[in-house]
Formats: sequence, C-alpha cells, structure tokens
Amino acid sequence: MFDEVIEVINSCSTFLITSHARPDGDALGSELAIYHVLRGMGKDAVVYNQDKTPAVYEFLPGSKNIIHSLDSVNRFDAVFVLDCSDIERVGDEKDKIGSIKKIVNIDHHASVGTFSEILLVDSTASSTGEIIHRLLKNMGITITEDIATNIYTAIMTDTGSFRYSNTGIDTFRVAADLVEKGADSKYIAQNIYETKPVVQIRLMGKALDTLEFYEGGRVSSIYVTQEILRKEGALPEHTEGFVDIVRSIEGVEIAIFYYEASKNQFKISLRSKGTVDVEKIAGRLGGGGHVKASACRVEGDIKTVKGKVLGAIRTGCNAL
Amino acid sequence: MFDEVIEVINSCSTFLITSHARPDGDALGSELAIYHVLRGMGKDAVVYNQDKTPAVYEFLPGSKNIIHSLDSVNRFDAVFVLDCSDIERVGDEKDKIGSIKKIVNIDHHASVGTFSEILLVDSTASSTGEIIHRLLKNMGITITEDIATNIYTAIMTDTGSFRYSNTGIDTFRVAADLVEKGADSKYIAQNIYETKPVVQIRLMGKALDTLEFYEGGRVSSIYVTQEILRKEGALPEHTEGFVDIVRSIEGVEIAIFYYEASKNQFKISLRSKGTVDVEKIAGRLGGGGHVKASACRVEGDIKTVKGKVLGAIRTGCNAL
Repeated sequence: MFDEVIEVINSCSTFLITSHARPDGDALGSELAIYHVLRGMGKDAVVYNQDKTPAVYEFLPGSKNIIHSLDSVNRFDAVFVLDCSDIERVGDEKDKIGSIKKIVNIDHHASVGTFSEILLVDSTASSTGEIIHRLLKNMGITITEDIATNIYTAIMTDTGSFRYSNTGIDTFRVAADLVEKGADSKYIAQNIYETKPVVQIRLMGKALDTLEFYEGGRVSSIYVTQEILRKEGALPEHTEGFVDIVRSIEGVEIAIFYYEASKNQFKISLRSKGTVDVEKIAGRLGGGGHVKASACRVEGDIKTVKGKVLGAIRTGCNAL
Repeated sequence: MFDEVIEVINSCSTFLITSHARPDGDALGSELAIYHVLRGMGKDAVVYNQDKTPAVYEFLPGSKNIIHSLDSVNRFDAVFVLDCSDIERVGDEKDKIGSIKKIVNIDHHASVGTFSEILLVDSTASSTGEIIHRLLKNMGITITEDIATNIYTAIMTDTGSFRYSNTGIDTFRVAADLVEKGADSKYIAQNIYETKPVVQIRLMGKALDTLEFYEGGRVSSIYVTQEILRKEGALPEHTEGFVDIVRSIEGVEIAIFYYEASKNQFKISLRSKGTVDVEKIAGRLGGGGHVKASACRVEGDIKTVKGKVLGAIRTGCNAL
C-alpha cells in the first residue's frame, strides 16, 4: 500500500493536492500536511479546494496558499485526492482533476472510491490525517511543526476532540507523537473551539428558548427563524453546531434543528443518538445523509414544518 | 516520592479515600481508581465525599459505593486526600480526616498543601488521574478495565477533552494505555458530554441572557442566581461547564461565571484563555486555583459581587 504512494512521490515532481468541497478539518489538515511534506522534499505542490477555507481553519500553516480556481492541470504529474471516497465530492473541477495521470487516494471512509488505482484506505483509522501520519513514518519523513499542527488538527476535528467512536489506541499514540513534534494541542483547540463569535453565543441563547420535546423526551428540537437571525444580527454560519446542543440532552434519541434559510423555506438537520435511522426520516421528506446525521428541506411556516417533520418521524420510524 | 506512598499502601490495611467537596471528574475518577487498586490488593477501602456524586458520573465503576457521612475515623490506618491542595476543601469533616495518622496527598495543583507529609504532587501533570497512572506503573499494578475507565474519565474531564494547556505528550500516552486497558473513550465521552439534563440546557439558555462584556470584550461573564435556579427547578450541579461557554467566545481572555450558592453568597469561577493569571485575581479575593482556572467566594448581591470581581481584575492584572 505505502510503496505505491511513495513511488509516486519519489518519481513525480509537480503535485496537485485536493479534497472534498466544503472542506473540514480533516480535509484541510491532510492537504496541508502533504503540501508541507512535498515542499520539504523540494517538490512543486499546489493545494486546490473549490470552496473557501472556513475562518476557523485560517491558522493552519500553509492555508494562505490554498487556491480556489483551477486552469489547466497539464503541468501536474500527480494528484492527491484526500478524505474523499468519490471524485464527485471534489466539486466542479472533478473532470479536470480526474484527468491527471496519477491519482493517489488517501481516505478513511468505508466506501472505497473507484477513481484511483493508487489507494491508501483504512476505514479503521480515525481520520485521513492519521493515515498520513502512518505514511510519513513509513517514509522516514521528519515531521516538522507545520506538518504536526496540520495532522493534529485533522485528527482532533474528525474525532470531535477524541470523543467519537473512531478514536482508537493509535489515535492517542499518534496525537502524543504530534505533540512531541511541536503540535500545540491547546493552541489548536483554542483556534477551533474557542473563537466563537459573540453573536453566535447570543443566537444560541435565543435558539434555546425554542427548545421542545416530543415522544416522552425522545425527540427534541430547537429552531432559528429569519426573524430571530435578523434580530440578533447573525449569519447562517452562526447556527453551526446547534443541533449538537439538542443531541447532548439526556434521553434524546432524535435531535432536530429547524433553520429558516429564507422566508418559509426550512433546512432541517436531524441527528440520531440511539438506534433510529434518521436517513430514512430525511428520505421521506426528500432529503438524505447518513444513519446518524441527515438533512432535508421543508416549506411552510415553523408550525407547519414542525408538523411535517414530526409526522415523518412518527410514521417512518419503527423504533419510536 | 512514589516509595513513601507505596510504603503506606503496603503497610496499612484500612484506607479512607476522599477529595474536595463538590467532586468533579478528576476527584471521582482518581478516588475510584485508588479504591479499585486497594480492593484488588485485598485491602479495605472506603470512598467518602461530602457531596453527592453528580448524576453524570454515576456510570463510573464503584461510584455506587461512595459514602457521604462519616462517623468515627478510628478504624482507618491511612487516608488518601486526592486532587485537593488544602484540607479545608474536603468540607465539614476536615478535622476528622486530618486526624488520621497517615495522610497521603496526591495532587496536580500548583500550591502544595501542608496538611500531609506524604506528598505526590506534580503541577505539570494534566490531572490527579495522570499522577495515579504513573504511581500504578511504578507499583507494577495491572490496570483493570474499572481502573482504566476511572483514570480516563479523570484525565478527559480535567483536560476538557484534551483541549486545555495541561494536555501534554504524556497525557496522550497515558490515554492510549488506558484505552488499551479497556477504557471505552466513546462510551465515557457520551456519558459525560451527551447526557445533559433538560433542566441544565434550559438553565444554560437563561444564563446566556445575562452575558456581558467588559474591557473591550476581553472580559466576559454570565451568572446564575438562586432565583434563576429556583425558577428553572435546577440544581447547583447543573451549572457545571457554564464558565466554558463564556471561555469559548472569540476575543475573551478572562471568562467569569458567578454562581449564587446561597442568598448573597457567590462562588465565582475564573478562566484565562490568554496570558492573564487568574489565580492572582482569585487570590486577591481570598480564593485560589491555577493560573488558567481559579475560583473564589464573594458576598453581596450580584451587582456588588460583579463590582468586586471586576475591581480585582482591573487592579490585579497587568495584562489588561
């Protein structure tokens, strides 16, 4: 597995590095780790993402060099497609990127992409970052502070700060090694988790005023309407993570967050903490996602929308 | 350091184990780890805490056996006072406990207690749990799943899920070892972070309504009075973690949580996210703790108390 990837690294000199659209911490940390490794070897490397780097990740070493438009890809000998089980997820430039001769796919998702012959995939790894750490150890690469910071961020964000079930023994061992190599766990956590805009906290308070329970407390919801958003001077991105507050409540099996994206147009996030498959519920309303996390869009005022979603839960969910 | 403690363990047969009042995860996890170790060695061990175990920690192996009243302490050969720099913090039974012949103090706080001759104190350790892990390694004790679960909980809670500055290389190494020994990181995290009582979430909403900023946003606070607590039907333990919400706000360097423990008696939690030493501020008001996390008690109504604390910050804090 490693040999093929190492062979590509050694034999090529100009690399494109990319990941899925709307990149998260694992995508960005993995991309920038590979970027620093290749640059350290004197190679030419460029990181491309369709979407802008979220403000919270701007501290990542190298993030300022990420590009967001792609002309010709002729000059690239190889491309790293990271944390991405399907080339479609790269976004609009998927065809250009798919045309690059050598494609290396490093990923930890269960479903393996078929778009690449050179695969480094391990669904038992916490994150793509953890697999990259393994690759670097295998290559005998010296892990610099910049590399360590990026990989640590990838692992920390994808494990929800070492809380999710993907956190294994190796995850902690790798974290120890990265801290030893200069990753500042506190600085990274502070950048990710402790830079919430004031308006987001105020909005959270308002959203909590809408907290409701159904089915004996097994279903719970909060909502944010356009009116609330306007009153607080908040932006859509300030609602990030709100569904997780509902999820954190004792006894809640299905957590719902209703967000009014525009007048009477609601985007609904669903989370399952128990055995309920929320993908099925979202599916009934024309949405989709995973068993534990799904989303859908429903039209109407908040009362109507609630009725529709709760109806879908009551009829489409054997577990309740 | 270790030798003296090991000598006490080996030479004594009946132990009391205790910690500070209002025990947290490090207090409880450390107590119960020592409890399982001693019981595993065939010793008689009793865990006493003045206050009830918060519901969130009831999953800890052995927590059902913790006692909350103490008659005579004559039968104890020795007492472990854990995570406690001052015997006063044990609560009402401090004199009884202080009268036990052998007192072993294991702690990671900067200020060393003078109430014990047998000390195992390391302020560079993340938690008392981490020091106990070191002790067990030194003793050659086999770490069972019950011990691992308790120590992991101690470390996880005291590092804020590996986010605070006390998280070091060893913290991660120890975590890896504990997961290897059977600590289920996801199960523990879910018990701690995803079983919040509804009333706590509602109380959080009310507390957020009190959010205020000073010094250009570098100081921020929320409060919970007895009146708010009563209205929401909440318990003191439901305020746990509230100071961290304030801490998570962008630009905040000092986070304050005012909690009215009884009529006009406030307990104030202080957190530093920047370079400010909040121990100094707490110290000015008769309290103590660490550079980054301290507490004190101030009398008066909320307005008076705020004035005193902000006064101490403004005069005692060169960094602002």
